[in-house]
Amino acid sequence: MRIALDAMGGDHAPGPIIAGAVEAVRDEPGITVVLVGDQAQIEAELAKAPDAPRDRLPIVHASQVVGMDEKPVEALRKKRDNSISRCWGLVATGEVKAVVSAGNTGAMVASALFNAKMFLPGVRRPGIAAIFPSHQGPIVIIDVGANMNAKAEDLYQYGVMGSIYAETILGVTEPKIGIMNVGTEEDKGTDLTKATRALYQNSPLAHRFVGNVEGRDIYEGHVRVIVCEGFVGNVLLKAGEGAVEFLFATLKQELAHLIPELSADDGRKIAASLKGLKTRFEYQEFGGGPLLGIRGACIICHGSSKERAIRNAVRVAGTMADEKLNTQIIEALAAGPTTNG
Amino acid sequence: MRIALDAMGGDHAPGPIIAGAVEAVRDEPGITVVLVGDQAQIEAELAKAPDAPRDRLPIVHASQVVGMDEKPVEALRKKRDNSISRCWGLVATGEVKAVVSAGNTGAMVASALFNAKMFLPGVRRPGIAAIFPSHQGPIVIIDVGANMNAKAEDLYQYGVMGSIYAETILGVTEPKIGIMNVGTEEDKGTDLTKATRALYQNSPLAHRFVGNVEGRDIYEGHVRVIVCEGFVGNVLLKAGEGAVEFLFATLKQELAHLIPELSADDGRKIAASLKGLKTRFEYQEFGGGPLLGIRGACIICHGSSKERAIRNAVRVAGTMADEKLNTQIIEALAAGPTTNG
Repeated sequence: MRIALDAMGGDHAPGPIIAGAVEAVRDEPGITVVLVGDQAQIEAELAKAPDAPRDRLPIVHASQVVGMDEKPVEALRKKRDNSISRCWGLVATGEVKAVVSAGNTGAMVASALFNAKMFLPGVRRPGIAAIFPSHQGPIVIIDVGANMNAKAEDLYQYGVMGSIYAETILGVTEPKIGIMNVGTEEDKGTDLTKATRALYQNSPLAHRFVGNVEGRDIYEGHVRVIVCEGFVGNVLLKAGEGAVEFLFATLKQELAHLIPELSADDGRKIAASLKGLKTRFEYQEFGGGPLLGIRGACIICHGSSKERAIRNAVRVAGTMADEKLNTQIIEALAAGPTTNG
Repeated sequence: MRIALDAMGGDHAPGPIIAGAVEAVRDEPGITVVLVGDQAQIEAELAKAPDAPRDRLPIVHASQVVGMDEKPVEALRKKRDNSISRCWGLVATGEVKAVVSAGNTGAMVASALFNAKMFLPGVRRPGIAAIFPSHQGPIVIIDVGANMNAKAEDLYQYGVMGSIYAETILGVTEPKIGIMNVGTEEDKGTDLTKATRALYQNSPLAHRFVGNVEGRDIYEGHVRVIVCEGFVGNVLLKAGEGAVEFLFATLKQELAHLIPELSADDGRKIAASLKGLKTRFEYQEFGGGPLLGIRGACIICHGSSKERAIRNAVRVAGTMADEKLNTQIIEALAAGPTTNG
């Protein structure tokens, strides 16, 4: 399994990105990670891990980087030799089966969308899935920002793709699917949510479709796949990250006052326990969000990703490609109610 | 100050709702709370507080209740003598200055919107504001569900009304205003966010307008008023509540394992500290979300509200009416770039 990694993408690139790749190839003997980016910088980072299996860490040189805050389309046009476009080039030619980047999300998506040949047959618009925690285990929210102009047909396809991801990667049997809405009643919401509801009810997914769900249903976990417009999903994803950071920061402040009052031993136990808890809420377990609906497998990592997130993203991308996720998506979409792409 | 309270609205009505009213009139000698609902039930609850100042707790009988899960418009049409419509009737005739309800939110909004005379001069569509916590103190997100079809002009008016609320009720000096979006760059988002941005930039609020903000900016608190479509705000509000509940439930589970390992004394300290922390994240401090843009003052409380939330909502509603919030809103809208209602 060959996976391209954008070695230059992310707030901390290239050091921790390349370190994550080294960990990934050490963990998984069947994986080769193609490091895409500035050859000299990559070589310098690899020199820090002299016992890394270099035969499974080949380099593809790219002289340019799309900055995290650059306008995606403009940057891709100006910087023809950027690491993101090179990664997708390797997918297009079949040299790799998957791609992972913690770089500019907009550029990752735009670069894939530029080339309609990258779309899977039957897919109208690819979508990014995000993995949220819940009382029942991880759930999928899709789309979180690939498509700012979703139609009901897109939200149907996101349900198809999100539930195949939930089954294959998260191990959920027959995941229930819901539409993010402002209330559970049938007549709630917008024209889009109503049209989407009608589409699901007359589809091969009708038996797993629960109708509308609300924001608070995310964490209950009864519904394991929630579809929404990219705008709504993106706001939700970032607000969720912000809420977790804020809560833990407040908790930390509170405990800073309290821990000195506890016995030294108890203080250490509490601090360790909360640190463990925080990692459970972090995005790193699955490395990032998959871009679904394109050829190959793609994980878009959080800009702040370090070793652990990259290692996990490489692993998940490899599994996605192995499990023939795309074959399942193509078949399920062909059985769907509409594919008027 | 006379305030109408929907005694029948909410998951726990009427007991804790009426108990909250009793607390409110005890706390604030200048307040009269008109209890609207089933006379016999209200009398029975008041009998449980024999020393309550009954002269400041008059009853207005309403024989019907809109259920929490009823379809708002249908319920309002069928149940003409419902407590929500009666409350608004008291506002319309000037018998009360403000109204508070923990009942069916859709019915509260629809009942106000039925009568265009309830709109303040210049207001296109009223909006519901929600108060979120942040590192800098409470912030306002508006609209969280009154308007499912917002135009740029509505999002401008929400900024006007939200910032007057932030100044007057939350005590924020010259609050900064932002548009909820998927990125901070100028070209991000939808046609709506772009049109809204243009409107603010050529308005009397331009000096306080920061442009686009993202979900994670909510909790940073640099921007104290964030405007968005009702759909987005409602999903955010409920997801935020869900996240807080989920985090504290997970924390409780974690501590259930840990506390037995601590000394009894330290265990008690930790448990007390976390309980205190949780209340800081609850919606009860401001009692609920104000519906802005209508005559009088209105607080829509969470369905699960009990004494404390109701007492606080009555207090805030009284302050809103006292502070002549509406006079300020009317003046600010008249100065605005557009009022093509």
